Amino acid sequence: MPKLVDHEGRRARIVEATWRLIAERGVEGATMRAIAEAIGMANGALKHYFPDKNSIIRTAFTHVFDATNERVRERLRGRTGMAGLRIFCEEVMPLADLTDLEARVVLPFWQRALADADLRQVYTDAMALWRNQIIEFLHQGRAEGFVSTSTADDVVAEQLLAMLNGFQSLALLDAASGTADVQRRTVEAFLGSLQ
Amino acid sequence: MPKLVDHEGRRARIVEATWRLIAERGVEGATMRAIAEAIGMANGALKHYFPDKNSIIRTAFTHVFDATNERVRERLRGRTGMAGLRIFCEEVMPLADLTDLEARVVLPFWQRALADADLRQVYTDAMALWRNQIIEFLHQGRAEGFVSTSTADDVVAEQLLAMLNGFQSLALLDAASGTADVQRRTVEAFLGSLQ
Repeated sequence: MPKLVDHEGRRARIVEATWRLIAERGVEGATMRAIAEAIGMANGALKHYFPDKNSIIRTAFTHVFDATNERVRERLRGRTGMAGLRIFCEEVMPLADLTDLEARVVLPFWQRALADADLRQVYTDAMALWRNQIIEFLHQGRAEGFVSTSTADDVVAEQLLAMLNGFQSLALLDAASGTADVQRRTVEAFLGSLQ
Repeated sequence: MPKLVDHEGRRARIVEATWRLIAERGVEGATMRAIAEAIGMANGALKHYFPDKNSIIRTAFTHVFDATNERVRERLRGRTGMAGLRIFCEEVMPLADLTDLEARVVLPFWQRALADADLRQVYTDAMALWRNQIIEFLHQGRAEGFVSTSTADDVVAEQLLAMLNGFQSLALLDAASGTADVQRRTVEAFLGSLQ
């Protein structure tokens, strides 16, 4: 049992060091050597976790995606419909220091996924999960009387999903729409238009 | 005069070869050697045009952006308001072979821009131009009686701009929303909701 705990702990430390290195130094800065140094581990032992560069970026993206979902889950506390959807959007948008760092993992991940079918599958699965989650919030919103738009839920979900993806590049790279305030106003108006 | 024409022609050939190489082989495949080979030019002469890797990706992105705007201009032929906005969206979305290739330049450009202030400025300027163009279409749409949403034009523009950015990653990397049909339906419903 103690051995298993150590192993899991080590894996968690590797994942944490990996996504932070990518976020802070870029994907080129997250070398095997830099990751090994950050957690005080032998370069060779790390190869067991990361056979290649794309496995590093996959691990980082998956961690960021899981962490986002975990924050949404923690904040929901039984809230559904539009209240739930609002919380979901706030955690996905790069509004704060942490979510800004997370977006710095997403952009290199996208670039790598262009030439890697496994990474594209990870992204497709992630977006399918979010799409379904948004649709569920919309269903609840309709049942609760807060959503009455004539646009079908799957279409609204696609609009919101595209918008949230777009904020990843706009917030990080475009000073004009990079503020948390602009993002909030933009999404808030969209959610308001669903009533 | 003939010399100037040759120089411009060579520059155009370099730009064309560069963005196509990035689109087809990825940013790693668009080496100085590969570009030089593609246009039958000495590696050394090419350095005059591209002092570093980021100048290659900047050239490719600027070409894709300019080409998109040129297609919009050609198709507009006096159309304004919602008709104009529809044409604009169709040329920006990765709906066809060409626009799909163009998006393959955009994702590596974003990744590089994370660590390069000059590239971010190019992107910020590009988005400012599109933002203003969308707002102008919306103003015209209101004057023509086809836009009556209570959401302010600058907020609508930000929503659409985020959505169009989001399609660059969704269309290329997510099979589920990658079809031209889904993108068209998504944007068409959004434009329809502005009436």
